Amino acid sequence: MKLNCDLGESFGAWQMGLDNDVMPHIDMANIACGFHAGDSSVMAHTLKLAKQHNVMIGAHPSYPDKQGFGRRSMSMSVAELTQCLHYQIAALDGMAKVQGLTLSYVKPHGALYNDMMNNQQLLTTVMGAVASYPANLKLMILATADAKLHQTMAWHLGLTLILEAFADRQYTDQGQLVARNIPGSVHSKDALLAQVKQLLTGNSVTTQSGKSLKLVADSICVHGDNPQGIAIIEEIKALCSANSSS
Amino acid sequence: MKLNCDLGESFGAWQMGLDNDVMPHIDMANIACGFHAGDSSVMAHTLKLAKQHNVMIGAHPSYPDKQGFGRRSMSMSVAELTQCLHYQIAALDGMAKVQGLTLSYVKPHGALYNDMMNNQQLLTTVMGAVASYPANLKLMILATADAKLHQTMAWHLGLTLILEAFADRQYTDQGQLVARNIPGSVHSKDALLAQVKQLLTGNSVTTQSGKSLKLVADSICVHGDNPQGIAIIEEIKALCSANSSS
Amino acid sequence: MKLNCDLGESFGAWQMGLDNDVMPHIDMANIACGFHAGDSSVMAHTLKLAKQHNVMIGAHPSYPDKQGFGRRSMSMSVAELTQCLHYQIAALDGMAKVQGLTLSYVKPHGALYNDMMNNQQLLTTVMGAVASYPANLKLMILATADAKLHQTMAWHLGLTLILEAFADRQYTDQGQLVARNIPGSVHSKDALLAQVKQLLTGNSVTTQSGKSLKLVADSICVHGDNPQGIAIIEEIKALCSANSSS
Amino acid sequence: MKLNCDLGESFGAWQMGLDNDVMPHIDMANIACGFHAGDSSVMAHTLKLAKQHNVMIGAHPSYPDKQGFGRRSMSMSVAELTQCLHYQIAALDGMAKVQGLTLSYVKPHGALYNDMMNNQQLLTTVMGAVASYPANLKLMILATADAKLHQTMAWHLGLTLILEAFADRQYTDQGQLVARNIPGSVHSKDALLAQVKQLLTGNSVTTQSGKSLKLVADSICVHGDNPQGIAIIEEIKALCSANSSS
Repeated sequence: MKLNCDLGESFGAWQMGLDNDVMPHIDMANIACGFHAGDSSVMAHTLKLAKQHNVMIGAHPSYPDKQGFGRRSMSMSVAELTQCLHYQIAALDGMAKVQGLTLSYVKPHGALYNDMMNNQQLLTTVMGAVASYPANLKLMILATADAKLHQTMAWHLGLTLILEAFADRQYTDQGQLVARNIPGSVHSKDALLAQVKQLLTGNSVTTQSGKSLKLVADSICVHGDNPQGIAIIEEIKALCSANSSS
Repeated sequence: MKLNCDLGESFGAWQMGLDNDVMPHIDMANIACGFHAGDSSVMAHTLKLAKQHNVMIGAHPSYPDKQGFGRRSMSMSVAELTQCLHYQIAALDGMAKVQGLTLSYVKPHGALYNDMMNNQQLLTTVMGAVASYPANLKLMILATADAKLHQTMAWHLGLTLILEAFADRQYTDQGQLVARNIPGSVHSKDALLAQVKQLLTGNSVTTQSGKSLKLVADSICVHGDNPQGIAIIEEIKALCSANSSS
Repeated sequence: MKLNCDLGESFGAWQMGLDNDVMPHIDMANIACGFHAGDSSVMAHTLKLAKQHNVMIGAHPSYPDKQGFGRRSMSMSVAELTQCLHYQIAALDGMAKVQGLTLSYVKPHGALYNDMMNNQQLLTTVMGAVASYPANLKLMILATADAKLHQTMAWHLGLTLILEAFADRQYTDQGQLVARNIPGSVHSKDALLAQVKQLLTGNSVTTQSGKSLKLVADSICVHGDNPQGIAIIEEIKALCSANSSS
Repeated sequence: MKLNCDLGESFGAWQMGLDNDVMPHIDMANIACGFHAGDSSVMAHTLKLAKQHNVMIGAHPSYPDKQGFGRRSMSMSVAELTQCLHYQIAALDGMAKVQGLTLSYVKPHGALYNDMMNNQQLLTTVMGAVASYPANLKLMILATADAKLHQTMAWHLGLTLILEAFADRQYTDQGQLVARNIPGSVHSKDALLAQVKQLLTGNSVTTQSGKSLKLVADSICVHGDNPQGIAIIEEIKALCSANSSS
């Protein structure tokens, strides 16, 4: 079970995230490409950090909206979105090569991520964009009850998916994340660790309504914006190690 | 003698340049990378056009300044400028690969181009940025009286230069372009064609003061913003063909 | 019947619209505020032009999206949109005062205009933003079959509406514009002039389905992007003059 | 002696500065206008905070460069810079009026501030821009040995200056700030408080070379980016109060 984290979300003079502290603890870094966060200097710094810690790198592209941090849905045509994704992936891909690194995957950010998980046409566009980029890139999406369908969609495009689960978020019975503004949607530390354990040992989560939902995940998304978050990452990592060795 | 032209300088809903009309007549397309002009959709369109007409493609990066069209000098640190150039080159490089194309060279735009021709430290930074990008990219700069020096600087970095001359601009005795706001700095059609002929047959230009200045150029920069410009490109091309076959 | 037109939609080096040619023929100039088009220099130029021709000026604010020319819907919170509108209105308001001009009204642009005509909550937000700006500003919206409702909504906020009709666009039975991508949605010149005549003399339009729909408009929106458009403006103007004097 | 501080420099999701903690302790808030920092939502929040604490408000306009935080010099024409300043001042002016506040002054930011203090032509452009904005706005600049000259320049434009001194920065013999990258250019706390005392009681500072330089300041610039900075503001304030009551 790989741990992935959104990184490189500083911009110009503005700092965000404890990237230096998080990088040593994760397996996969989702790096902002300059459309919702990041800029060429931040990207170069983040790539260097990933290289130091031998962390797999992924592009974290977004709707073009820095002020909204990519959290506002935008209506874009299929061609516009495809080209917008190619541009962002390409920018990070080339900057990674400057440092001798190879881009491994793409994970859409924010509103684009949520929108594609709720709109199959949009998901098809995103899959098409990643599949048509001439590098061996996987696509990271949310592991839901529709994972089989998503795998089939990807298979038709010759695309490999990475399915991720969230440690800290409650799930609906359909395997979607419960919206952040709903009470109980974000787990306490104990519930969070319990959810990780259940994912590791049972390939399932306990949903909002108390049901057990089968969820096979390749990766768990963790957060590194504050010291508590980083402490939790270390505990999640310990659970993963214990499980893999058992 | 190759003809090069700045293309892909539309942005969003705003059109600029007669790209469709110019592309059939040129050898090298300098394509904007989204910092002074262009966006991911314009770039995809321009690349497609270059592919149709089998035109060599180059990145045309700029200071980050859309409102000023990259024509305003900006003070950037060596690291900032290097990363800013890597980002732009990478974006076009990857988008070119999506269409099965290979990026061949880099030609800085506007104020960045002028500044680097007047500031050896800046030129060194630009050369370093292009040389450190992991693709076989040449750098296009102005052919001046300092061409030997520039060749040596490039040679130390393992970089190949493309030296370009301007058909329509008057030269100083040092082989710099006379500033546009000075009367006589932009040639009439006859003077322009005479200058091309002299470049082709004599490897020289007649400067502002009437001297003959040796100028060996690999490429001539042409402009395609208006129908007259395109007619002139065809005449320049005819001169080049006549010369190469003689 | 006043003629209004979107103006000041150039940006930096990119020209759009024949503002110099249109301004003499219209009554109200909807001036872009720098978020979908325009910049501080374009705004200053457009205001000067409006002053020369004694044309009433309005702010033409948009979603923040230059690449998309404000034509892509974006999800913004009530507070975000309100502040985003205040900023744009304020920028134009102050720049108008620099030239001794007074801002008279606000007309939202593009996707924001369409979205607010299809979403009463959004229209309420826009009305609230204009009403809370401390100047005597009217709000221009589309004259539809819901005009009474809209008038009531505005009245509660102490806001005066300007209802506009489109000369060149076909209407649905509900008085919405037929989408541009539907065949027949944009009128030929003859149909356009007939629609203006019907608006002037009958306060009605003939809808897509052939029905007569009552539509009382204070203003007609005209377009000045090409010479034909400007010729049509003159014909519309002649119709209006003939009608007002009869 | 008034204390002024740069505020409202967050942007979108990125926080900067401890505005909530600083506002109660200062007299004048220099509020970013969205070109180097700030956005319409941050501006609305900062204005509200200034209102709560009855703090005088000023516009803090910049070169248009968010990534560079307005710290990179840009070459702009007189007209471009004037209009760029009018736009930013207008945006804050109108948003202040929405909250029933009145803008009192303008203090240019970052590279623009430094450039205008080193280039009399640029200072003339900035003075002209502020003087031509139709509100009763003062201009805040650095108190230097040239204060008399600056006062005369302003007087010709009908403009009133606010001269500010820096508490934490060492001065050259000409009354310019010693560049930040030079050792000793930023004072320790004790030296800082000593400099404030000398400004208050002696209208002078001790320069880099140990000379006493006469410097009459209307305001002292303080910084609120960290808790230590805020503690120092309180000490400076105490010194000012002690001095004014003596």
